[in-house]
Amino acid sequence: MIIVNTGNGKGKTTSAIGQIIRALGHGQKVCLIQLFKGKSFYGEQKILQKLENLSFFNFAPKHPYCFGNKGHQAAKSECLKALKFVKKVAKGRKKYDLVVLDEFNIALRDGYIKLKVLLKVINELNLKSNVIITGRCAPRLLITSADIVTEMQEIKHHFNIGIKSKMGIEY
Amino acid sequence: MIIVNTGNGKGKTTSAIGQIIRALGHGQKVCLIQLFKGKSFYGEQKILQKLENLSFFNFAPKHPYCFGNKGHQAAKSECLKALKFVKKVAKGRKKYDLVVLDEFNIALRDGYIKLKVLLKVINELNLKSNVIITGRCAPRLLITSADIVTEMQEIKHHFNIGIKSKMGIEY
Repeated sequence: MIIVNTGNGKGKTTSAIGQIIRALGHGQKVCLIQLFKGKSFYGEQKILQKLENLSFFNFAPKHPYCFGNKGHQAAKSECLKALKFVKKVAKGRKKYDLVVLDEFNIALRDGYIKLKVLLKVINELNLKSNVIITGRCAPRLLITSADIVTEMQEIKHHFNIGIKSKMGIEY
Repeated sequence: MIIVNTGNGKGKTTSAIGQIIRALGHGQKVCLIQLFKGKSFYGEQKILQKLENLSFFNFAPKHPYCFGNKGHQAAKSECLKALKFVKKVAKGRKKYDLVVLDEFNIALRDGYIKLKVLLKVINELNLKSNVIITGRCAPRLLITSADIVTEMQEIKHHFNIGIKSKMGIEY
């Protein structure tokens, strides 16, 4: 099953984290591959690193947008490393019940990963795992391939009245 | 801060669970109060019960809709117990950084809890905690009071082509 969490609202990654906790609770094996999230900036990363049956990997810790629009080439090269790793997971012997590709839609949007290539890998993963892809701007073809698609739509957000991101809420 | 996860799509509760994991990762104290979710049916419940700094409570385990539309009175009485408990949390000495009221929008929708009463308690809670309220059909007044509102909008769901709920995905 292919699940996509997209849209401009809050809840895409946190919902994927919730799905991971749900799957782990049933004794399922989970692989989480994150892009652009650092290694221990987000609170959940500190908990996830300790959970049994969860393999957790990070690539491209710094998105150029958050770091002065520099380093597009470095980000692209890191995303391609991540893609290579996902291919290995898809072809590997280890069976995960759930594979989460966090923020991979952003890597597609920014041209770091080609949609056609990622779709092929997702379809391979889908032969043995449920797959969740998160990030705003999910491309139409990914939506067409998916079984469940949710658009997290921002109705209201405190950022819009100038409030900065808060620990425990946004990170 | 008051956060509302609503809409007909997937991700309202799982996103709240992700927020809990995020907050716990920063050493924050969290209180989760669930309605209509049983006690160990959902995978996440098995993990959440074991996490440090999380107080986890269940009320009204059976929603009448899922159990043959019987027992509205019992569900209402359980929801009122839950409300009483939330009031105790709001007035209590223990300081939670985050309080999650899972599916309380459903208790409002079905008339088990009065909006005016719940809003008062939420505003009290909000003096010392971040508060997340989940469930479809969030009422307009709750949205007005909130700082962040996300509508989880269903773009596509496998239920609609007759596929039943799956372990690790829907529960």
